[in-house]
Amino acid sequence: MGEVVAVLGGGQLGRMLGLAGVPLGLSFRFLDPSPEAPAQALGPLVVGALGDEAALRDVARGATAVTYEWEGVPAEGARALEQLGYAVRPGPNALEVAQDRLGEKETFRRLGIPVPAFAAVDTRDELARALDDIGTPAVLKTRRGGYDGKGQVMLHRASAVEAAWAELGAPAVLEQMVRFDRELSVLAVRSLAGETRCYPLVENRHAAERGTGGILRASRAPAPAVTPALQAAGEAIAGRLLDDLGYVGVLAIELFQVGDELLANEFAPRVHNSGHWTIEGAETSQFENHLRAMLGRPLGSTNARGHSVMLNCIGAMPDIDRVLAVPGAHLHDYGKTPREGRKLGHVTVTAATAEELDDRVARLEFLVDA
Amino acid sequence: MGEVVAVLGGGQLGRMLGLAGVPLGLSFRFLDPSPEAPAQALGPLVVGALGDEAALRDVARGATAVTYEWEGVPAEGARALEQLGYAVRPGPNALEVAQDRLGEKETFRRLGIPVPAFAAVDTRDELARALDDIGTPAVLKTRRGGYDGKGQVMLHRASAVEAAWAELGAPAVLEQMVRFDRELSVLAVRSLAGETRCYPLVENRHAAERGTGGILRASRAPAPAVTPALQAAGEAIAGRLLDDLGYVGVLAIELFQVGDELLANEFAPRVHNSGHWTIEGAETSQFENHLRAMLGRPLGSTNARGHSVMLNCIGAMPDIDRVLAVPGAHLHDYGKTPREGRKLGHVTVTAATAEELDDRVARLEFLVDA
Repeated sequence: MGEVVAVLGGGQLGRMLGLAGVPLGLSFRFLDPSPEAPAQALGPLVVGALGDEAALRDVARGATAVTYEWEGVPAEGARALEQLGYAVRPGPNALEVAQDRLGEKETFRRLGIPVPAFAAVDTRDELARALDDIGTPAVLKTRRGGYDGKGQVMLHRASAVEAAWAELGAPAVLEQMVRFDRELSVLAVRSLAGETRCYPLVENRHAAERGTGGILRASRAPAPAVTPALQAAGEAIAGRLLDDLGYVGVLAIELFQVGDELLANEFAPRVHNSGHWTIEGAETSQFENHLRAMLGRPLGSTNARGHSVMLNCIGAMPDIDRVLAVPGAHLHDYGKTPREGRKLGHVTVTAATAEELDDRVARLEFLVDA
Repeated sequence: MGEVVAVLGGGQLGRMLGLAGVPLGLSFRFLDPSPEAPAQALGPLVVGALGDEAALRDVARGATAVTYEWEGVPAEGARALEQLGYAVRPGPNALEVAQDRLGEKETFRRLGIPVPAFAAVDTRDELARALDDIGTPAVLKTRRGGYDGKGQVMLHRASAVEAAWAELGAPAVLEQMVRFDRELSVLAVRSLAGETRCYPLVENRHAAERGTGGILRASRAPAPAVTPALQAAGEAIAGRLLDDLGYVGVLAIELFQVGDELLANEFAPRVHNSGHWTIEGAETSQFENHLRAMLGRPLGSTNARGHSVMLNCIGAMPDIDRVLAVPGAHLHDYGKTPREGRKLGHVTVTAATAEELDDRVARLEFLVDA
């Protein structure tokens, strides 16, 4: 009785995978370097490095399938498990592509998916040349290891080359900083049989440094004023990428909307913060659909149920009683020790209409941003 | 960080309380006589009798509040924890009333809540006299310990007295078997501050022996064709009972509808099978509202989201892939070993309209009843 799913990473995403999977009769085991990993509320925790082969073997033992909840999981470790015969889903190839910003952008381009102008930067001179070509403003990003706005420097003037080079160095990618209308994301799930379903496009708001991929503050779903053509464009982007990767599970692509066009910024080969609204706001949550996909089960409906906004709780949790007093508000406390800039939880608020949602969000933003 | 809730009983209700409570940042500890109790997926399990004082102390240690997920929990044990200073919610008095069918019915009557005719039966002669008064058909029920249709005998003719007496004996209650139009239940939650909220009335269908309180097969919410007056009548019944008990948490009352009138059959001082639909079908699930109430938090909205039907999986789980392929279907596998007559899980199916729901239910009933 009871299939076991092994999850590489034991953060809030693992925790929410567990919460979605227990009702499906699944058991979970997590691997995380921290003995305080929040996912351990849902199953045994193996404490160890995500690339440690013994720890990987330990967490995977007897599991029906292995997944990861962080795109920084060393791809070699995931490959090693695959070679031992484990079903690693999504496949380690998705990690490899996502872990290299250059490979990621080249993949988009190869698939005919529009992206902001970019250039590989391996030397200081290449940076100067690339900046000439692309123009300012631009963003220099490390090829590996950046997330939540870390590992990137903005260049507003050509004279900023020296400082940017000194701060980041190579290997890096210089990207055009697009003057976009808004940031969207498309969340898609692909089944073992190759069927892809997309959730409605989500509108995202990031903290402070807009456009540099800073930490996510809020998501609204469905994104307002999305034409069928725009939704179709987002789904086409997702479909091409997932098919190309032979992907199994949930994947999120961050997009810039410029007029009627969508440009791909980056993708995350996992369940994603901009999909947390699906727990209450969609027919089937991203977490359940990820599990259904990786276990070869039929996908669930990705339709929205009403209108939702998800607000991240960053650095501190809001006053819980006041949050819970807002109709339609759903608290998600990850059980983490507060630390500045840390995602400690989120609140999703749902409503039947966009107007009702606006009222509720106004009450919540005051609390969650406080 | 992190309040601990102790739950007396580690069955599926405890498991679903845990699933609702982890996102609220709560941790759980369960007490159950079975080392295979399904709730242990959500927290440590103390294996022991529900009336064992050492085990009770063990599970309650350090808990912010203690609750129970079975109305058969010995009231003395719950009282003992209360005397040790623990917040036991709902209070042990609710257990005491619910554990005695006679006291339960007398409470309803004292509160002016209509009930089917009944009489206490302590001797064979009293049974014969009561049957004369009440008439046939009637049901003889043990005062203590019956559930899911156990501990009761139907009397269709006066001549059945001998056999019924031989089977059940005293102390018992004889109840008029009402020719009702349908079975409903009202699910209510009362906060620590004394506010009561009710979910929409639910229509229930029981297996085989209709009217004898047999095992629940299906619930539909909101119940079709409920007038505002009928909903108000259900809420008035719940309000009177909860206030009288000084109740904190979720309570369910089983009702018979006869014409425009509601008769109270029995109540369960806990989250209830006829409220499982609230996980996907209401703004706030019964499990979350029970926890909010017992921890002194504001109650969540009890409004329905669309239309829902909950089907119990009894004795065997259905073909999971075929269930998951039905749009709007949500599987809840309790992780229990199959056994005839055992509740192993449930499926809730939701839809935006009653017509869409009917289509989906038709597909599911074929699978779940198979």
